[in-house]
Amino acid sequence: MNPLLAHDPLRSPVRIDADRLWARLDDLAQIGAVDGVGGARGNCRLALTDADREGRDLVVGWMRDLGLEVIVDVIGNVFATLPGTDPTAPAVMIGSHIDTVRTGGRFDGNLGVLAGLEIIEALIDSGYRTEHPITVAFFTDEEGSRFAPDMLGSLVYVGGMAVERALDICAVDDGARLGDELARIGYAGSAPCPAPAPPKCFLELHIEQGPILEDAGITIGVVEGVQGISWTEFTLTGRSAHAGTTPIAARRDPLLVAAQVVAEVRMLCRDLGGSQVATVGRFEPHPNLVNVVASQVIFTVDLRNTDDLVLIEAERRLLEFVEQVAQAESVSVQTRVLSRFAPVDFDHGLAELIERCARSEGASSLRLPSGAGHDAQMLARICPSAMVFVPSVGGLSHNLAEYTDPGDVAVGAQVLADAVLASAVLLSGERVNRSTDSR
Amino acid sequence: MNPLLAHDPLRSPVRIDADRLWARLDDLAQIGAVDGVGGARGNCRLALTDADREGRDLVVGWMRDLGLEVIVDVIGNVFATLPGTDPTAPAVMIGSHIDTVRTGGRFDGNLGVLAGLEIIEALIDSGYRTEHPITVAFFTDEEGSRFAPDMLGSLVYVGGMAVERALDICAVDDGARLGDELARIGYAGSAPCPAPAPPKCFLELHIEQGPILEDAGITIGVVEGVQGISWTEFTLTGRSAHAGTTPIAARRDPLLVAAQVVAEVRMLCRDLGGSQVATVGRFEPHPNLVNVVASQVIFTVDLRNTDDLVLIEAERRLLEFVEQVAQAESVSVQTRVLSRFAPVDFDHGLAELIERCARSEGASSLRLPSGAGHDAQMLARICPSAMVFVPSVGGLSHNLAEYTDPGDVAVGAQVLADAVLASAVLLSGERVNRSTDSR
Repeated sequence: MNPLLAHDPLRSPVRIDADRLWARLDDLAQIGAVDGVGGARGNCRLALTDADREGRDLVVGWMRDLGLEVIVDVIGNVFATLPGTDPTAPAVMIGSHIDTVRTGGRFDGNLGVLAGLEIIEALIDSGYRTEHPITVAFFTDEEGSRFAPDMLGSLVYVGGMAVERALDICAVDDGARLGDELARIGYAGSAPCPAPAPPKCFLELHIEQGPILEDAGITIGVVEGVQGISWTEFTLTGRSAHAGTTPIAARRDPLLVAAQVVAEVRMLCRDLGGSQVATVGRFEPHPNLVNVVASQVIFTVDLRNTDDLVLIEAERRLLEFVEQVAQAESVSVQTRVLSRFAPVDFDHGLAELIERCARSEGASSLRLPSGAGHDAQMLARICPSAMVFVPSVGGLSHNLAEYTDPGDVAVGAQVLADAVLASAVLLSGERVNRSTDSR
Repeated sequence: MNPLLAHDPLRSPVRIDADRLWARLDDLAQIGAVDGVGGARGNCRLALTDADREGRDLVVGWMRDLGLEVIVDVIGNVFATLPGTDPTAPAVMIGSHIDTVRTGGRFDGNLGVLAGLEIIEALIDSGYRTEHPITVAFFTDEEGSRFAPDMLGSLVYVGGMAVERALDICAVDDGARLGDELARIGYAGSAPCPAPAPPKCFLELHIEQGPILEDAGITIGVVEGVQGISWTEFTLTGRSAHAGTTPIAARRDPLLVAAQVVAEVRMLCRDLGGSQVATVGRFEPHPNLVNVVASQVIFTVDLRNTDDLVLIEAERRLLEFVEQVAQAESVSVQTRVLSRFAPVDFDHGLAELIERCARSEGASSLRLPSGAGHDAQMLARICPSAMVFVPSVGGLSHNLAEYTDPGDVAVGAQVLADAVLASAVLLSGERVNRSTDSR
């Protein structure tokens, strides 16, 4: 009997080195480090800034140290590949991003990239080989904090936006052109984008960025898909008036209308149930004075659902309600769609594989949707894709205090390794002596 | 028969010169002028600034031109008096203020002072005399924009705050001490304050600052009293969270709680009826981002009612509601009282007199409460007091575009003149020849 199948076919003999992975997370977190309150230490490595270049250089250095073939495509996505035994087989790709938001954490994105690097190093160290190549990738500008939209590099990689258009996007902060910034930091590569051929499959390890796993006491989240996102900005215009001298009946108060909408979106979530969430996070009255009825309120509604039909129903109900309450108060409404992504379903086979790998490693697991967007949802357009989540302490993310327990990082990376090695077909033949490996 | 009583005893033979009054309003509005949108031109003469000094100097110059005795008290209130025939009779006082908010209009306050000056000049011109002296006054820092609280000069004048305490108040903007600023602009007078003896009565002409008169097509507002004011600031603290990844049940959203309160205060007005108004004008969420559940919201509630018992009930219901909805969302509440003034009733006899004067002048009138605070409410503590309102176009005030029709200004000033001359007892004896007048 094949020794690899002996006890549990999915518990791979290739074991990741959790300390080495943690040390790399530490090293990368030194670049663009930002101190927060209470000793929290996070990162600011906005896409294509000097800090991003420094982070890229560090990770690419590690890729080269492992003897991997590194290629950079025209949008700055970076791919490092360990060959498989079959030169014609498509690669199993592991990836995420290493850019951060302005006050980001050290795990968001970075964990997925460095876990991929660790899996490749552990595989090399083990002397085993796989039939398929294994590629670890990081994609340009996943966060979208400097260049909108987010998930830009992976979007272009899967053919969702023409590369010429992407290169012409200007930065929100300083107006710099993306193509110029890519060249400036030395990451305007020559590999074609979109990719000429899709990977065999794509796997991404990520922190949950929410409280579900922690609250449930579960280590591994098996991500079934990504919620659809609908962002609408409402501008309500009424009439500014003196708070003391204007009778209620004479008021056209946009702040009241906006408040009624805030209360309604919560009711909407209760009514629609399921995964429906809704948030009013931005709310700006003008002139914003204690004794003046506002003339205008601008606010946003963020709606998310894993089911696009329900999301469309939520959007419809929201618009209808806003029109109705605005009319009752003689307030005018302008709407602007800020963002709209349909929900994405991840590959069922890969999700099952991750679930079985978790079980093989003795880790608890839970299926859940992702509330945030990820590169994997772009890759899902061209190949079977899946994600593994590990818990975020306090559900925190996009926050300097973002944290994931080292034990959870270790289990998550090993489960990812098991799934990657099963997908890339770990060979049971004679192990390669590491010291004589050609690399 | 006394010719003054011939047709209508209240239609005074002393007729104000509406053009002269309008010209003075124009001249005063040149000082600290601020241009707004659409050709609007308003004023910035914050209390005890150089612009305030310049405005004071202009008005005091006019007072001296009329031969009036001008006195300045220790808090900078200015009084100009035309003697009556009875040297022991208390004065009938006409007054208001000439300081403005940062983006104020040219009528708020100024109209009451310059109408008083016009009445005195018209009386002098007419050759008639009154038994009681007539005083025109302007009070320091009515707006409270630079030194809190508002109505400060009249508050000190009526003994509502010790003058030493008032002189030590520091400016909100630059921290300057009120007493030092008074001395700097040359208005630290020597007349005692509080006043040693109250006036016979106090009358104030003011623009409405609301839409009631304009909407009703009425020229003269007979002000019955001033609403009580209650300002509370609420700080709601919940937990910041990712809008996509945080289930509704796990949220502690202070913005939702604040919105529920906004909707409730409108219901409160409907429930309590009468003159009850309530406004949430300031509303500040943090961090105020589209995809983040706010951690904190600071908002204010402005409650006003002419009936203090109802106002107290409104305050009680508001606090109870806030506690209830905050608890349901696990959000903590901090409250801070920003301002609290009990309602003021004006003198019934004076209100009736104004109503009759309006009728005598053929002007329509309406009784209404004042939603804003005025110097007259302070004077009401020491003598019979009343106010005359004229319409504000569009209900606008504390706004560069504040405007009142010249015809309404003329009628308002004449009705005020009639009420003042009736109170000061216009004498029907031989008229003084103006050219031989000692002034």
